[in-house]
Amino acid sequence: MFIPMSFLQKEAAHVEGFAPELAVVTIGGGQELAEPIVVRPTSETMIGHAYANWIQSYRDLPLLLNMWNSVVRWELRTKLFLRTLEFYWQEGHTAHASPAECDERTRLMLDVYTDFAVNEAAVPVIPGVKSEMERFAGANETLTIEAMMGDGKALQSGTSHNLGQNFAKAFDIQYLDHNNELQYAWTTSWGLSTRFVGAIIMTHGDDHGLILPPRLAPYQTVIVPIYRQDADKALVMEVVARLQQELVAAGIRVKVDDRENLTPGFKFNDWELRGVPTRLEVGPRDVAKQTVALARRDIPGRAGKQFVAQAGIAHTVADLLVEVQQALLDRATRFRDDHTHDVDNYADFKTAVSTGFARVWWAGDSADETRVKEETKATLRCFPIDQPGGSGTCFLTGKPADKVAIFGRAY
Amino acid sequence: MFIPMSFLQKEAAHVEGFAPELAVVTIGGGQELAEPIVVRPTSETMIGHAYANWIQSYRDLPLLLNMWNSVVRWELRTKLFLRTLEFYWQEGHTAHASPAECDERTRLMLDVYTDFAVNEAAVPVIPGVKSEMERFAGANETLTIEAMMGDGKALQSGTSHNLGQNFAKAFDIQYLDHNNELQYAWTTSWGLSTRFVGAIIMTHGDDHGLILPPRLAPYQTVIVPIYRQDADKALVMEVVARLQQELVAAGIRVKVDDRENLTPGFKFNDWELRGVPTRLEVGPRDVAKQTVALARRDIPGRAGKQFVAQAGIAHTVADLLVEVQQALLDRATRFRDDHTHDVDNYADFKTAVSTGFARVWWAGDSADETRVKEETKATLRCFPIDQPGGSGTCFLTGKPADKVAIFGRAY
Repeated sequence: MFIPMSFLQKEAAHVEGFAPELAVVTIGGGQELAEPIVVRPTSETMIGHAYANWIQSYRDLPLLLNMWNSVVRWELRTKLFLRTLEFYWQEGHTAHASPAECDERTRLMLDVYTDFAVNEAAVPVIPGVKSEMERFAGANETLTIEAMMGDGKALQSGTSHNLGQNFAKAFDIQYLDHNNELQYAWTTSWGLSTRFVGAIIMTHGDDHGLILPPRLAPYQTVIVPIYRQDADKALVMEVVARLQQELVAAGIRVKVDDRENLTPGFKFNDWELRGVPTRLEVGPRDVAKQTVALARRDIPGRAGKQFVAQAGIAHTVADLLVEVQQALLDRATRFRDDHTHDVDNYADFKTAVSTGFARVWWAGDSADETRVKEETKATLRCFPIDQPGGSGTCFLTGKPADKVAIFGRAY
Repeated sequence: MFIPMSFLQKEAAHVEGFAPELAVVTIGGGQELAEPIVVRPTSETMIGHAYANWIQSYRDLPLLLNMWNSVVRWELRTKLFLRTLEFYWQEGHTAHASPAECDERTRLMLDVYTDFAVNEAAVPVIPGVKSEMERFAGANETLTIEAMMGDGKALQSGTSHNLGQNFAKAFDIQYLDHNNELQYAWTTSWGLSTRFVGAIIMTHGDDHGLILPPRLAPYQTVIVPIYRQDADKALVMEVVARLQQELVAAGIRVKVDDRENLTPGFKFNDWELRGVPTRLEVGPRDVAKQTVALARRDIPGRAGKQFVAQAGIAHTVADLLVEVQQALLDRATRFRDDHTHDVDNYADFKTAVSTGFARVWWAGDSADETRVKEETKATLRCFPIDQPGGSGTCFLTGKPADKVAIFGRAY
């Protein structure tokens, strides 16, 4: 949790980037400390120190360490999940014997994060490369996945850094190669945080509450029994128990809401608020007709409700969960695409970034980025990995450009 | 992770107990902080603050929260696992509507920890009550499990605190009872830390390395193939694969050590060092005879090795794992008992605590405890829950005593 201040100072760009965000412990055990220690904002320096001890020869490489921990970055304006003074994340750190392998790992982790975002969380993201200005402090290259929230704002949702030999040189991470010569290692780091919980909430949620993607939902379906009289209760609960058993057997995460003294209507709202993707309702008429009402959270009201046979319920629900997962991704992708505009002049750029992303040919430098940020609050989110090819004219500078960039207003 | 200093000051005994151990953040985001914040040494104060907001009525009770997190207590002399400046633990916090329920939870968690220690970790512990002097700062009663390490020293291995209404009054945790009257809640807290990893190592380990109790061992058995020629290799590996399959099917955590270029002897030592409780060796002669050599980690050398039939290997290993688990507990219990002495005078007391525990009738007060500690380095570990009954004479003060206490030198 603690890093000596002197560790941070070993990598010049790193300390410059993080110094304004540090929480500093100056008193320990009642004594003023000779050297202040910082609460880790990220662990590259501590890892660098450890790797320098652990790595002696090419046989020790590659080395991969993943940690789950809290980090602290001082924030005056916090925003729940998205920007908190303390946040929980995973941070991974690797060391390699070649720049090619180092680059490969940096890209691999971008793919891992992209896969998680798109296929598990149904959050469409744009994998891309950060500009020099937006790069991680101390990295040669920062890869990122960028998402658009429901209000059109951009959220950096995970990053993977190629640190080159910067930290290896600062911390003396050296290994003996096959020729018995000392070489500096090549290192990467990458992280994804609880901010992504915010991404899920703000990508899918609506005015009724959360909408959780089925693959991540703790409960994928909830069964609400409906009855007025005790005689009905026994009949209904017998069917509920059978349905529950079939769903569990099929590996579906199911909750039976058998709370007393709450109306079915209250329960419907309660589980909608909590984002459970599907809901089964079983009443006396369903018992008689061997049916059940099946509602989907992503389409509220009657439009999202159908009556289905009790027979084969596990298949029916499993299919609907796949359908909802895809529908959430499709809807978010459509929203993102509808709010992304190709523009070639500053006026249209300003309009585009006021409601979403601007996609532009870009040949500006850091000074140009700063100007755009000051004038429009928009920042260069990334150069997408998926480039159109060819060349164009930079919308701001008029210079010839060979890359397209995404701009947006970030959290 | 952070607690405002003012929160700690709300409970007088709590801040007095923890103040000397605090790491204090005085600078955040480049600015001197108006109020210093501490890195949590334990979370009762933060939980108290939260519970005061969350609890309104008796319907909100009981409330239980468990967290896994790091805490910091400033230590100048650290000892790996046992006493570290930062350590990882679980801490649980409950609030109740009655003192009886609060007491019940405090005792329940002592039972949970005792069960884990004895039945999972094979670490015999004495569940007991701490003296007033050794109590958690802010608790009415602290329950503890006390273990004896391989060097005769005592290790406090888990604690459960009845906090009464102390934190409820300090943090205003109030609820409306059935009569619509405001009442203070009754709270508990309890924790067990990575210190217990140290307890496992120091209870069971020997000069060859770790000995892990089978129920907790990541690998319960390791299979080491033995062959000199490639022709043998195929025969041996076929049997190894079959044995592995049978063990996995029986739910046994098994590792096949098929590393090349390492001798079987090196592998034996390597897995002994890592504490794997049992080992299977398969060579060409075993293939021919349909046997396998089965070694147990807790009895090194030939004495712990037997040749068993390949047929029914899963049963054989499963039975041996149960046997080893019990043998570890028995050995540690015997060691603990052999190093625990009932004494009735100070001279014998001093001898007893130089090699283990002294069990004594005790009627002293905190001043007497302090004297004993200064003169012998031994502290009152606990009044065991399991008391002999009757009464005796305090070994130190000569006063009539109705309770037996355990003293030992602690880490």
